[in-house]
Amino acid sequence: MPLFLHKGCLSVLPGPHRHGDPRVPATASGAWVGPEHEEEALRRKLKYFFMSPCDKFHAKGRKPVKLGLQLLKIIIVTVQLVLFGLSNQMVVTFKEENTMSFKYLFLKDYDEGSDNTLAVYTQSDVYEHMFYAVDQYLVLPETTVGRYAYVYGAGFNGSALSLCQHYYKKGRIDPANDTFNIDPHVITGTVQDMQTFSLAKGWSLHRERLINVTIQFQLKAINIQTIINNEIPDCYTFLITIVLDNKAHSGKVRISLDNQASIKECKDPSVSGQAENYTRLTFDVAVAMVCMLSLVLCGRSILRGLILQHEFVEFFKTNMGRKVSWAERMEFINGWYILLIISDVFTITGSVIKICIESKNSSAYDVCGILLGTSTLLVWVGVIRYLTFFQKYNILIVTLRAAFPNVIRFSCCVAVIYLGYCFCGWIVLGPYHVKFRSLSMVSECLFSLINGDDMFVTFSEMQESSTLVWVFSQVYLYSFISLFIYMVLSLFIALITGAYETIKVTLHY
Amino acid sequence: MPLFLHKGCLSVLPGPHRHGDPRVPATASGAWVGPEHEEEALRRKLKYFFMSPCDKFHAKGRKPVKLGLQLLKIIIVTVQLVLFGLSNQMVVTFKEENTMSFKYLFLKDYDEGSDNTLAVYTQSDVYEHMFYAVDQYLVLPETTVGRYAYVYGAGFNGSALSLCQHYYKKGRIDPANDTFNIDPHVITGTVQDMQTFSLAKGWSLHRERLINVTIQFQLKAINIQTIINNEIPDCYTFLITIVLDNKAHSGKVRISLDNQASIKECKDPSVSGQAENYTRLTFDVAVAMVCMLSLVLCGRSILRGLILQHEFVEFFKTNMGRKVSWAERMEFINGWYILLIISDVFTITGSVIKICIESKNSSAYDVCGILLGTSTLLVWVGVIRYLTFFQKYNILIVTLRAAFPNVIRFSCCVAVIYLGYCFCGWIVLGPYHVKFRSLSMVSECLFSLINGDDMFVTFSEMQESSTLVWVFSQVYLYSFISLFIYMVLSLFIALITGAYETIKVTLHY
Amino acid sequence: MPLFLHKGCLSVLPGPHRHGDPRVPATASGAWVGPEHEEEALRRKLKYFFMSPCDKFHAKGRKPVKLGLQLLKIIIVTVQLVLFGLSNQMVVTFKEENTMSFKYLFLKDYDEGSDNTLAVYTQSDVYEHMFYAVDQYLVLPETTVGRYAYVYGAGFNGSALSLCQHYYKKGRIDPANDTFNIDPHVITGTVQDMQTFSLAKGWSLHRERLINVTIQFQLKAINIQTIINNEIPDCYTFLITIVLDNKAHSGKVRISLDNQASIKECKDPSVSGQAENYTRLTFDVAVAMVCMLSLVLCGRSILRGLILQHEFVEFFKTNMGRKVSWAERMEFINGWYILLIISDVFTITGSVIKICIESKNSSAYDVCGILLGTSTLLVWVGVIRYLTFFQKYNILIVTLRAAFPNVIRFSCCVAVIYLGYCFCGWIVLGPYHVKFRSLSMVSECLFSLINGDDMFVTFSEMQESSTLVWVFSQVYLYSFISLFIYMVLSLFIALITGAYETIKVTLHY
Amino acid sequence: MPLFLHKGCLSVLPGPHRHGDPRVPATASGAWVGPEHEEEALRRKLKYFFMSPCDKFHAKGRKPVKLGLQLLKIIIVTVQLVLFGLSNQMVVTFKEENTMSFKYLFLKDYDEGSDNTLAVYTQSDVYEHMFYAVDQYLVLPETTVGRYAYVYGAGFNGSALSLCQHYYKKGRIDPANDTFNIDPHVITGTVQDMQTFSLAKGWSLHRERLINVTIQFQLKAINIQTIINNEIPDCYTFLITIVLDNKAHSGKVRISLDNQASIKECKDPSVSGQAENYTRLTFDVAVAMVCMLSLVLCGRSILRGLILQHEFVEFFKTNMGRKVSWAERMEFINGWYILLIISDVFTITGSVIKICIESKNSSAYDVCGILLGTSTLLVWVGVIRYLTFFQKYNILIVTLRAAFPNVIRFSCCVAVIYLGYCFCGWIVLGPYHVKFRSLSMVSECLFSLINGDDMFVTFSEMQESSTLVWVFSQVYLYSFISLFIYMVLSLFIALITGAYETIKVTLHY
Repeated sequence: MPLFLHKGCLSVLPGPHRHGDPRVPATASGAWVGPEHEEEALRRKLKYFFMSPCDKFHAKGRKPVKLGLQLLKIIIVTVQLVLFGLSNQMVVTFKEENTMSFKYLFLKDYDEGSDNTLAVYTQSDVYEHMFYAVDQYLVLPETTVGRYAYVYGAGFNGSALSLCQHYYKKGRIDPANDTFNIDPHVITGTVQDMQTFSLAKGWSLHRERLINVTIQFQLKAINIQTIINNEIPDCYTFLITIVLDNKAHSGKVRISLDNQASIKECKDPSVSGQAENYTRLTFDVAVAMVCMLSLVLCGRSILRGLILQHEFVEFFKTNMGRKVSWAERMEFINGWYILLIISDVFTITGSVIKICIESKNSSAYDVCGILLGTSTLLVWVGVIRYLTFFQKYNILIVTLRAAFPNVIRFSCCVAVIYLGYCFCGWIVLGPYHVKFRSLSMVSECLFSLINGDDMFVTFSEMQESSTLVWVFSQVYLYSFISLFIYMVLSLFIALITGAYETIKVTLHY
Repeated sequence: MPLFLHKGCLSVLPGPHRHGDPRVPATASGAWVGPEHEEEALRRKLKYFFMSPCDKFHAKGRKPVKLGLQLLKIIIVTVQLVLFGLSNQMVVTFKEENTMSFKYLFLKDYDEGSDNTLAVYTQSDVYEHMFYAVDQYLVLPETTVGRYAYVYGAGFNGSALSLCQHYYKKGRIDPANDTFNIDPHVITGTVQDMQTFSLAKGWSLHRERLINVTIQFQLKAINIQTIINNEIPDCYTFLITIVLDNKAHSGKVRISLDNQASIKECKDPSVSGQAENYTRLTFDVAVAMVCMLSLVLCGRSILRGLILQHEFVEFFKTNMGRKVSWAERMEFINGWYILLIISDVFTITGSVIKICIESKNSSAYDVCGILLGTSTLLVWVGVIRYLTFFQKYNILIVTLRAAFPNVIRFSCCVAVIYLGYCFCGWIVLGPYHVKFRSLSMVSECLFSLINGDDMFVTFSEMQESSTLVWVFSQVYLYSFISLFIYMVLSLFIALITGAYETIKVTLHY
Repeated sequence: MPLFLHKGCLSVLPGPHRHGDPRVPATASGAWVGPEHEEEALRRKLKYFFMSPCDKFHAKGRKPVKLGLQLLKIIIVTVQLVLFGLSNQMVVTFKEENTMSFKYLFLKDYDEGSDNTLAVYTQSDVYEHMFYAVDQYLVLPETTVGRYAYVYGAGFNGSALSLCQHYYKKGRIDPANDTFNIDPHVITGTVQDMQTFSLAKGWSLHRERLINVTIQFQLKAINIQTIINNEIPDCYTFLITIVLDNKAHSGKVRISLDNQASIKECKDPSVSGQAENYTRLTFDVAVAMVCMLSLVLCGRSILRGLILQHEFVEFFKTNMGRKVSWAERMEFINGWYILLIISDVFTITGSVIKICIESKNSSAYDVCGILLGTSTLLVWVGVIRYLTFFQKYNILIVTLRAAFPNVIRFSCCVAVIYLGYCFCGWIVLGPYHVKFRSLSMVSECLFSLINGDDMFVTFSEMQESSTLVWVFSQVYLYSFISLFIYMVLSLFIALITGAYETIKVTLHY
Repeated sequence: MPLFLHKGCLSVLPGPHRHGDPRVPATASGAWVGPEHEEEALRRKLKYFFMSPCDKFHAKGRKPVKLGLQLLKIIIVTVQLVLFGLSNQMVVTFKEENTMSFKYLFLKDYDEGSDNTLAVYTQSDVYEHMFYAVDQYLVLPETTVGRYAYVYGAGFNGSALSLCQHYYKKGRIDPANDTFNIDPHVITGTVQDMQTFSLAKGWSLHRERLINVTIQFQLKAINIQTIINNEIPDCYTFLITIVLDNKAHSGKVRISLDNQASIKECKDPSVSGQAENYTRLTFDVAVAMVCMLSLVLCGRSILRGLILQHEFVEFFKTNMGRKVSWAERMEFINGWYILLIISDVFTITGSVIKICIESKNSSAYDVCGILLGTSTLLVWVGVIRYLTFFQKYNILIVTLRAAFPNVIRFSCCVAVIYLGYCFCGWIVLGPYHVKFRSLSMVSECLFSLINGDDMFVTFSEMQESSTLVWVFSQVYLYSFISLFIYMVLSLFIALITGAYETIKVTLHY
């Protein structure tokens, strides 16, 4: 008889004079003939330990402090998340819009739609794009709508902008005679004096040996939009890198612009009519405190469980002379508490990072986001625990839990076939189909197909350059989709339906 | 034994000498030993009250007037809706096509495809776009294909067009030294004399402090297309606002055009060979009347139910000495009548607004549409009530109703996890994924994913700028989709299948 | 006990001395005490009538001629369809490519991507586009790659090209004063002399009153591509109509080109090394013949059924004194034969039209395609009849047939709600959402949503111009999708699963 | 009682003194009364033969060598596949990027988005595109970023580039009089001297009779990117063919560029600091060896099965005087071994081809990919065999196997209707809908629709040129989707659910 059944909030059942208490692990009840007193004490402890907060309140009048704390935590953690999200968004928007501006300003013929495909094919175009970027940099203050400042001395040799080419040390390539002679060590050539360069434009590239050309410089800006939200503006330094990439030596030179932003506090912030406020900091500290408290309480509960488990094991060993199995021991450790502890640790770490970010000592927005986001997800998932205190809500969780082992087992079988299809598709279709280029993309594509997405597109994007491969792709896709949608998905439904019916019958719901 | 079972149109069962009538709430039948006469009278009343229209017709020959009225209502409400829809569509098309024309006329380099992304990045482009719009406005009568008239005196200071810039009161930004000095009060500077401006074009913007530039003017037009439908043309006034938005100060100035139309009757309509007609008005009034009648009848039925309920409760209290539970009381209030009443109220309000719109006293097309649309939806849903009078159709409605509590309970559990995923996705993926920008978009995206839509796109749009976030996104998306499609959807199917089988077995269908 | 069960090809059962033959309609067996001889004769007739071809072959050695004929029919009908498809495709391609060429030649700034949105907004553009088309027409022989010939005398007043404008008889529109004066009678003004027009270009449009400008002319061409397939080339006449549409008077003039092709035999076909062949004609006639034979045989079978039914009814009336119900009478009419008859009629009609098309007497490609396509679909569906002769295949068809009434009933309930949502969505969301513009589009969109398609797009295409409508759209879409995917689809599965289990249990499969 | 049940790894069951061993085919156990000794020996052999590796280990201590070999094979086959995939990808990328470069260099106005639709419509454009390609070829060394070398003497008459036109021998087409006179023999006219051509450009095309113009030449290049991966660069020869296609004579001349690459070893590879290595070759040989061993072992097992089968059959014939049925005979042949043998043969062949490719003796990348990919898929699928040795994993495989016959039977019925819809859709909708152009596309489109993909797009792409066809398309699509999604898919689920429940009940899991 499964134990989880008895965690429901039933005020009728937990009378103190009940025999064969099902809360006690299965081996305990029934065959228990040790010294009466000790046994009675342990039984009472066990009963109390496995009670739900409701039962405890009904039985001893103990107020569910922990439950209230958790509900409070859900609220403040979510509020903290939303606050962080809003200020994070402003930072991201500012970065992105500046990146967009730089692309329009420094890349010739840039158009948003063709972002990934910007490339040139002739020598003159390479020079033109290179000089365009440099020229635009030189006249930046006169053209741009924004307010940028040059950063001097950041580049090579103390200059503001560094224009470098990387090429193989030696590289005589003669396709006409099918011969070549390459020394694959890479050499970097850099323009020293920008003034001279600008005048002469006589700088030439080592066409055959060229790997890439990079233009790198820094610009500074201030994000004054934040004063709308009553936040003090921050100072940004953008490190812009334009790369003309000839690594493939295929006659196509890709052009890309990368923009990395670093944020720091401005030196002398002066916004009329505004004072610094510490509300945010206070709130973050409060969140961390609440989580710390929750962490301590949950830790104590787990510790108590371990102590009781030890006691229980000892009792069995001495009085009944038999060992307690691992499965029974695990009943003492409440999975929900572990979930809460993980969530608390994440929140506390996240809050600390958040405080650092707000005091401009750190810009680990990603790590902070992942920590706070995951902890919020866990906290919300934890709400389900409280729903299972109600009999009727329980059945659904119980069903899912009952079906879970079978689902996992079945998933293993399915995963093996899935992996086989992934490898096979990557090798055979990869060269002819954009969606099969990398293993992770193959997996994404097949996963989407199982769930009924992008099917026609996947079929029709297949290049028909090779009949053999085309026929293979048809067999591959039809068989995969049919197998997974008609057999596998149906069996998932059968598993869950079966588990639900078993539970319904067993528990007489 | 559930009550709804007995609303079927069974002419066999309702003999007057039947004992233990199941139409009477469960507590009533069986343990009823009060004064014979009173009891008999109440029993007959109850029996009659819970009869379906068919049964009433069979039992007493009463014609189902209300049923006929409802069927009539369905027809006329739908006709009214279609009429409103057709004339609404013409208004919307005229507005939209004019907006499109204005965009092509006043925005430089406008192209339909790049509607949301129109932006400029250099100072000269800002001036050019600004002057282009003003110049185009001045030569409008010579260029446009349509027939527009200027509206004088609508702008600032009595001029026809107002060109304003909004900027911070004080704003010295010096990114080179990481210092700034801002007074966030907004000042509005407006061009006074358009003639001077047009000649000199010497008006300069406060680049650093600029928040936005707005160009605003009004144009008048007449929608003569309606004469094809025998309607009198209306006069439109368009308020056009062109905004060059520099709020973000990120080097990118977004340009947008907004067009707000107001509709009024033309002064002196003269269309050869046409007379005013009042058919529409008459029809609207008729619809309102029918709904009013339906409202009164339904109200009366509910009132009767309440009176009977009161009587029933009193009888129980005095004769049997026990209270009637809330669930039993609710049996007296027919949910369908409440649905009909809501629908009637909506239709009447909607009809009144429609009459106002047609007499040009109001242009609340949206509110009217929502009211009429919702009421039509409710009226059509109400048709199901009449279908359930047939035994065989009943089973399906009964199944859904039986499964409903479990579905709702399960949805609660699911919603909690769903919310957790929403918050988590918004924070972590928001900055790197277009579909996770706002909470409502996250919800839409996840909801679509559950139902198998846009999966591959969601995977592939993930920017790979940060490996950590990319890995997180993979775990997040795979786990979410697997959990919801394979576990949750399957359990929904299990719930409905289970309910269907229970009903089938219980009722021996 | 259902009748269809006994149509399986069981060679064990049909012994001649079997009692209570289940092939005989239910009322017949058992309570049959009339004159022995007559009864025995009728019983034998009935038994033979309800036998499957297999049983007939086993019982009397009668060869299944009809079955063989049907299998032959499937093959030749499909071959005919494929042949028609291939030649149809060539015609369609030629038409389409010419239309494309005309668009590129006669429409200024035409681009394939912007096909539906070609429009102009200024007066000068209107004139330019108009003159461009005429000029291109005049220099056509020198520019085009194809070989076109003018058709003289086809236009207005005997000219080759007619350039007309349609405008309201009277139309004084004065938006400035909100007054207008329109006579909605349409007048057509046509250019008489193309030469003069071409020189002067002084033709002016009635801007305010203008409804549209049409340019119409004809071109002739020969589709010589067909000689690759050994077919004689056909002569085409293209009627090209260019419309500049100002009907909406919204400042936007849509431009469209319509091309209608008519096909006729060329006068003097001369292709070296080719002779006319009559293979196609022979084949078509053969198909028609086979279908005619099948039609006659099926008709005979149905006739026999009716005669036997009459006999059976008479026997019951005279000998047993009771009427035969409609359901029992319907058992004598085999639905499959009706399906075959419909299919035969379609094929014969289609073949006749096909012969007409090939002898260039008709160009009703669409009608012919629909007739042949539908008949092929029906013929293939008819194959299922032969599959049901096998016991194991039967169960699935039986399940679907058993579930069908419930599915239809449930579909009615669902359709009512669906209709309500359609009307509501059309009215409220129509003006703000492209997919809700017309009722048929709303239905397509909602139908796709139910099946999990285009969900995110539908959400995100919602214009956020009105918050009220946006909130409504969210409620509308979430509620619709949840209701239909989680409740309705699950109940469909429950219905089919339930029927399958019932069948499995009943028949001890 | 099914046999597969007893292949689970149950150490409890296989005691040597068990009667009625279920591993022995059903007919054997029970009715066995032959000579005791011989029978006992055969019985033991049979028992041992049908043991799983686990059982064999438990019973006789035989180590599962074959199992270990298979696990090793999985690993090395996958590693080989990944290595092949990585080097294959580099080859494909180089080819593709070069093709892209050639398109940008030789095709006028080429743009990536309009790849499939590049076409010209006027004579002057035809000449311009033709001359542009030739001119670009002549100045190639000065313009391109890549390093290409001409290949002389590859074209017609020993020249480097051949410019040919193909035209009908005779072709007088006169659409004005509806007459034509064609000799469909094709003549090829080629420019002899490129220098003269380049100067004069006086070469004229036979416009009316022209079928196509082809420009063909070869270029050589070296893929030096591979030195990053420590591979020796290969030499590529590209055969570039530009076709201006006028086959359809519809006024539209399609332009396409095809690039075929052939790879060979370079003559005199010299990369500083690198030596040849034979690791790859060694690995490939090792893989082939392992697979050869696996092939031999599996072959031996199958051979043993056949011998035992023969023995068994003989025993039955002599001792019991009855034949053994085919189904029972098939039990002796293990399907998994056949799967492994196929996989081994594929891997060995694939490895041989891979060695050839790496030694530049072959460039059959596709065949090699298909062989290696398929073998990897089979090897991974084979893993399931080992999972079924565990009792709990078995149930799922057993369910799928039990449901399989019904699924196949049902699929047959469904396929017939599906085919009917395919043919019908192709004929009727083909001319008006892009997705119904070819039979394979129709099938892909309908298959996607069943699985809920691209539904709205399919609806909305329907051209509304013919009302009749539009109505037909609506009926066609709604009926198809409803039938397949609501009836067919639900029955698939019912089949699997039914099989799962039967198995669960039968086996008391």
